[in-house]
Amino acid sequence: MPSFSDIVAARDLITPRLRQTPVLRLDHCRGADLSNPVHLKLECLQVSGSFKIRGATHRAMTLPEGAAPGGLVAASGGNHGLATAYVARDAGLPATIFLPETASPIKAEKLRRLGAEVVQTGRFWDEAHAAATTHAERIGAFYVHPFADPVIVAGQGTVALEMAEQIPDADTYIVAIGGGGLIAGMSTVLRELKPNARIIGVEPVGSPTLHSSLDAGHVVRLPEVTTRVATMACGRTHEDIYATVRDLVDDVVLIEDDAMQTAAELLWFEFGLAADLSAAASLAALMTGAVTLPPEAVVAGLVCGAGTDGMGA
Amino acid sequence: MPSFSDIVAARDLITPRLRQTPVLRLDHCRGADLSNPVHLKLECLQVSGSFKIRGATHRAMTLPEGAAPGGLVAASGGNHGLATAYVARDAGLPATIFLPETASPIKAEKLRRLGAEVVQTGRFWDEAHAAATTHAERIGAFYVHPFADPVIVAGQGTVALEMAEQIPDADTYIVAIGGGGLIAGMSTVLRELKPNARIIGVEPVGSPTLHSSLDAGHVVRLPEVTTRVATMACGRTHEDIYATVRDLVDDVVLIEDDAMQTAAELLWFEFGLAADLSAAASLAALMTGAVTLPPEAVVAGLVCGAGTDGMGA
Repeated sequence: MPSFSDIVAARDLITPRLRQTPVLRLDHCRGADLSNPVHLKLECLQVSGSFKIRGATHRAMTLPEGAAPGGLVAASGGNHGLATAYVARDAGLPATIFLPETASPIKAEKLRRLGAEVVQTGRFWDEAHAAATTHAERIGAFYVHPFADPVIVAGQGTVALEMAEQIPDADTYIVAIGGGGLIAGMSTVLRELKPNARIIGVEPVGSPTLHSSLDAGHVVRLPEVTTRVATMACGRTHEDIYATVRDLVDDVVLIEDDAMQTAAELLWFEFGLAADLSAAASLAALMTGAVTLPPEAVVAGLVCGAGTDGMGA
Repeated sequence: MPSFSDIVAARDLITPRLRQTPVLRLDHCRGADLSNPVHLKLECLQVSGSFKIRGATHRAMTLPEGAAPGGLVAASGGNHGLATAYVARDAGLPATIFLPETASPIKAEKLRRLGAEVVQTGRFWDEAHAAATTHAERIGAFYVHPFADPVIVAGQGTVALEMAEQIPDADTYIVAIGGGGLIAGMSTVLRELKPNARIIGVEPVGSPTLHSSLDAGHVVRLPEVTTRVATMACGRTHEDIYATVRDLVDDVVLIEDDAMQTAAELLWFEFGLAADLSAAASLAALMTGAVTLPPEAVVAGLVCGAGTDGMGA
């Protein structure tokens, strides 16, 4: 896993290709009791529509010459695929993105507009991942792993450097988990800059990858993944991600898909944010009481990715 | 019309009820040649989904006791109606909002969720306005005019105070015009704080209210309004708005509805912003060349209101 200084170096490298996304304080909100200050970094406005561009850009910029004769391949709930397709387009490489069947049709359409080939296969990420790695090997493409790669994790971690600057008084971080790359990178940064911060991961009840592994004391493969939140569905994390989360994260809580749906609708109705379900995970964890706060806590979260999930039928 | 100090006073009054909306710099964008820095203040994330809450809040907070026994009534392309419904709900007053037939069904639905009665009538704003004023008189409601009211204009102008602080190096302001309340308030602020700034209004080709009045040298009533952009459709402005725009605004340019559609799609695809068509007007004016810039110009605009217009079918 990357060190703090690896992540600082990643930031120096990738910043010129990214946007400085703004932070919104969630206030004047009906429908949720937000008595603590809650600040969300709007990574839904980031290049490619999510924070995933951080890791993908870092990966693309450090790829050895000739490593991707067949282009880039990724398996993704949606956002990592968009990021991979985006950097492939910029590098003039073909991209093939494997999505599970639960992925958003809007993201599939965005992928096609970015020029990527889209293969929709498997019920959840792990199945798409298996198909994608086989395909990548066959065509001589570079497989861009969404979390089992320290270069990717370092890229994702850069968002925490910005959050520490943009929300200086935050002391509680609530982070959505899919495979765990984001929270691994972020917690590496936060334990350095904010040693006493409380760091909480959020997983769907139907994909408790880290939660189950922490309970077991080792990485487990989930017998089934039932969440409909494609960007947070992952049957097995990586050993190094697991160890980082175990050592640096205070708690991993579980929430229902419907709680993310409700929170995404609130983000749209009250705040005008077009968020995907994972982007609503931090808020959902607060609204359901899965995370409870002392009165003085100041919360930072991120709206991971853009989507239309909160906009109803 | 309000003075600069009226607008500063309005800000002091309304700020506790509003959000500090963030600014996004439009960079790393494909599909538009944005060689100049362009900064957009994201009023789509504002309370009620647009800057209109500024004027409506100012109006509600300064309403004389007993002025609205029948509640609040407004006629609106959508955003002013949402703002009026929002302040009515907070004040415990009934709200009736008249929308022209071109208004977004999504905004009508949001209005109903805010507890407002919605009356959809007339082809464009002026017809909804006529029905609304008659109704307000009959039921003893206060009619919240979207622009012919210095209290409203002062509220809208407060956004320019924030923009001047948040985008200190901007020297070119591009502002969408419906009835003209926003640009009247904003230009009053900007002429004080940025005497040499270039201030440009944008109207749809199908609703050239200010443009035609400036050409004629007096306020004209347009023979027809054909734009489908409900929030920028207005057949006749007010004398004081006209005089303010004539004296303070450098130019009013015209753009086609389709240019706003294209720009709204770009805001969604490249920036993850759920914008309505008027919110894309500044960008559309740049993309079409209706506004051309010297190389050193730094642009500020605002994403007036949230919407799904850029998201396609």
